[in-house]
Amino acid sequence: MTESFYTLRYRPGTLSLIDQTRLPREEVYTDFTEVEEVARAIETMVVRGAPAIGLTAAFGMAVAAHRGADLDAADKRLRATRPTAVNLFWALDRMQEARQKDPSPEHLDAAAQKLYDDDVESCRRIGEIGAALIPDGARILTHCNAGALATSEHGTALSVIRAAHRAGKRIKVYADETRPILQGARLTAWELMRDGIDVTLVPDSAVAHLVFEGAIDCAVTGADRVAANGDAANKIGTRGLACILHHHGLPVYIAAPWSTVDMQLASAAEIPIEERAKEEVTHIGGVQIAPEGVAVRNPAFDVTPAEWISGIITELGVAGPNIAEGLHNQSARAGRA
Amino acid sequence: MTESFYTLRYRPGTLSLIDQTRLPREEVYTDFTEVEEVARAIETMVVRGAPAIGLTAAFGMAVAAHRGADLDAADKRLRATRPTAVNLFWALDRMQEARQKDPSPEHLDAAAQKLYDDDVESCRRIGEIGAALIPDGARILTHCNAGALATSEHGTALSVIRAAHRAGKRIKVYADETRPILQGARLTAWELMRDGIDVTLVPDSAVAHLVFEGAIDCAVTGADRVAANGDAANKIGTRGLACILHHHGLPVYIAAPWSTVDMQLASAAEIPIEERAKEEVTHIGGVQIAPEGVAVRNPAFDVTPAEWISGIITELGVAGPNIAEGLHNQSARAGRA
Repeated sequence: MTESFYTLRYRPGTLSLIDQTRLPREEVYTDFTEVEEVARAIETMVVRGAPAIGLTAAFGMAVAAHRGADLDAADKRLRATRPTAVNLFWALDRMQEARQKDPSPEHLDAAAQKLYDDDVESCRRIGEIGAALIPDGARILTHCNAGALATSEHGTALSVIRAAHRAGKRIKVYADETRPILQGARLTAWELMRDGIDVTLVPDSAVAHLVFEGAIDCAVTGADRVAANGDAANKIGTRGLACILHHHGLPVYIAAPWSTVDMQLASAAEIPIEERAKEEVTHIGGVQIAPEGVAVRNPAFDVTPAEWISGIITELGVAGPNIAEGLHNQSARAGRA
Repeated sequence: MTESFYTLRYRPGTLSLIDQTRLPREEVYTDFTEVEEVARAIETMVVRGAPAIGLTAAFGMAVAAHRGADLDAADKRLRATRPTAVNLFWALDRMQEARQKDPSPEHLDAAAQKLYDDDVESCRRIGEIGAALIPDGARILTHCNAGALATSEHGTALSVIRAAHRAGKRIKVYADETRPILQGARLTAWELMRDGIDVTLVPDSAVAHLVFEGAIDCAVTGADRVAANGDAANKIGTRGLACILHHHGLPVYIAAPWSTVDMQLASAAEIPIEERAKEEVTHIGGVQIAPEGVAVRNPAFDVTPAEWISGIITELGVAGPNIAEGLHNQSARAGRA
């Protein structure tokens, strides 16, 4: 691993995760040896981020195999954890294929580790490819956490930022806090400060003012599912910032591994949007901030239409400005690979 | 007063304020008998909202007179509390005029009370005028708190909502939480629930998704300063939601008393934007949510350009769709009044 922390680490039968609900104040790693524990870690967002969720579920299958658990039940349980990110289903499909060949714990260990290693390489490539889009001196907005904490290593959007930084480009990052779970404040700011990258935290609602001030040049975010036409589902708030940047003629880039692209979906209108518990909005760190009994809407994701996106960066290249065509070409290449 | 609580209440020499920093969990009223205490109540947002700040400062001058304090120093201290809302300076100008005539405590009591009574009437009229713009069944987004808690009574944006509700229109309100101070979650949701008006709390970042869903018909917000061309400074986040609604062809209304309109300003580019302490972003209810030492931007206000605003509702009428012309006409009427 390249960071000074790890998101997930596997040794036969045991998955270790950094507890992202306790960051940035505590850096705690927890071991999981039961598939039910792994499923709950995904549901409660101990681990989050589309690629990291997929890898966690893959290792969850290996954990289940080591415990001699019913692998069909394990697959079903893990699929029921979170509905929006496609990587979860993609990774579990790969593990099902591995089972067909050889259901032994050792084979599932190797299959999950292969997915992990491939994700590391994809994230590295995304950084390399995406950094070419970032001019020297760029002030870059990012949303939620599309970092090492959301993937195996490097991250997706943050891999682009890391690669630009490593290449000596003098970049400045604005991380919006990303209510309600505050992944920007808690995770992205923490990750970038750890790496010595200039990061400034802002409330989500301050983005339009920063754009008005001329303080932002572009945005780079991750995605949880990208449809064939380039519509991208990502953490709630992405659509709003993309609308604002698009309206002001500023580029919005999405960085995601190819496993996030769901070529079976014509458009993102078909993507299920998870609605999470109201307590995520009414309470922060156990402190109640809204009146008792208030009604709440808490959609966890939204959809950014392809026409507001300047480019989708995957390990296969940049799709854009004609995103649908670019994804189609990448898909052909992925098929040949 | 018409609400089941009061924002500010004055008896000679003593100003009583509901402590808005402790809502919604505690309903505590505090008495202030020194101008320095009144100034600090404004700075620490015990009281907030442009019209309420102006009235508090006016009563602060009366408090100073009762204590035999230096009225020039009191005026200077109160003017230094918050830079963005023009009502503060407008109210203190009115109190300076009152002093010229008669600096006695009794005269200043009466002058401040007159400002209060006029604000009640303005807010009532704003509600009456604005309600005509709200269709039956409308789903209305509001931002921050432009309610009774931000004014004398009734509110501005919430006066429109209250009047529409009283008129029997089946409205539904979405209150966004309004980070970082959470006036939407803490104050607007509380006020509307008290009045039995259907209100749903949403994270600021969910607005674009609700618009995408077709769940929102229009927005009504307050303002802290409106320039002669119709540009409106209001709580941080207003510009972003206005951009999103405007982009989707949905109307955005601003409701504010005429004292908020600063005809001396050609455009809002000249309005000073207050930057507040970083702890408002890094901590919530005493809980630290961001890494120690992180850099923060925390602008308290932003500017919405007139072209994204469908109408500005004051007690003198609705300016719009040509807002600059409408404000000019209202100004002529105000001059004759």
